[in-house]
Amino acid sequence: MKNNLFENIPEKLPEELFETLLASGDIKIERIVSHGHTTTEGEWYDQSLDEWVLLLSGSAVLEFDGGKESVSLKPGDYILLPAGLRHRVARTESGADSVWLAIHFNHSA
Amino acid sequence: MKNNLFENIPEKLPEELFETLLASGDIKIERIVSHGHTTTEGEWYDQSLDEWVLLLSGSAVLEFDGGKESVSLKPGDYILLPAGLRHRVARTESGADSVWLAIHFNHSA
Repeated sequence: MKNNLFENIPEKLPEELFETLLASGDIKIERIVSHGHTTTEGEWYDQSLDEWVLLLSGSAVLEFDGGKESVSLKPGDYILLPAGLRHRVARTESGADSVWLAIHFNHSA
Repeated sequence: MKNNLFENIPEKLPEELFETLLASGDIKIERIVSHGHTTTEGEWYDQSLDEWVLLLSGSAVLEFDGGKESVSLKPGDYILLPAGLRHRVARTESGADSVWLAIHFNHSA
């Protein structure tokens, strides 16, 4: 019935790990585990849904298109990424798992 | 732009602290901070929305109506509480803040 966000993480993570924890109607709750991964240079996430994202462990830097200032994240930090806000993960900690909780939703629902 | 779930917690918490971090359409994201608080004996939450709840610090025990087994939660544990599942918080840690993230949503959206 319960699960834990810090468990069932493979020891090796050649790729970032994306897992849908819940998908219902217009909402999707996702766990992401990064381990030094970043978004490919020059690529941007450009999403049609709003995303509320929380960093639970590790550390990360988010970068935004168009000269907006980058945001450094530590555990407990959360940020709203509105649909259409072009962003990329510029850094995640290389010596630890960065565990994210991402909530995707349709703000016009 | 960013905020932190573990910051801006009053030193004294005579009552549980409920804060809406985001409300949009059919979804509400809430921070709850408990410090030894429990649901009044004999009272049950009986909600019309589904709730996905994550414990981020401290510890807690959820109890369910109708003889279902109680669930102990530690940091990182999450659980889905479907609409209509009568539940109460039977225990939260008295010596630390138990920080919860609760996501309320309408599963029929």
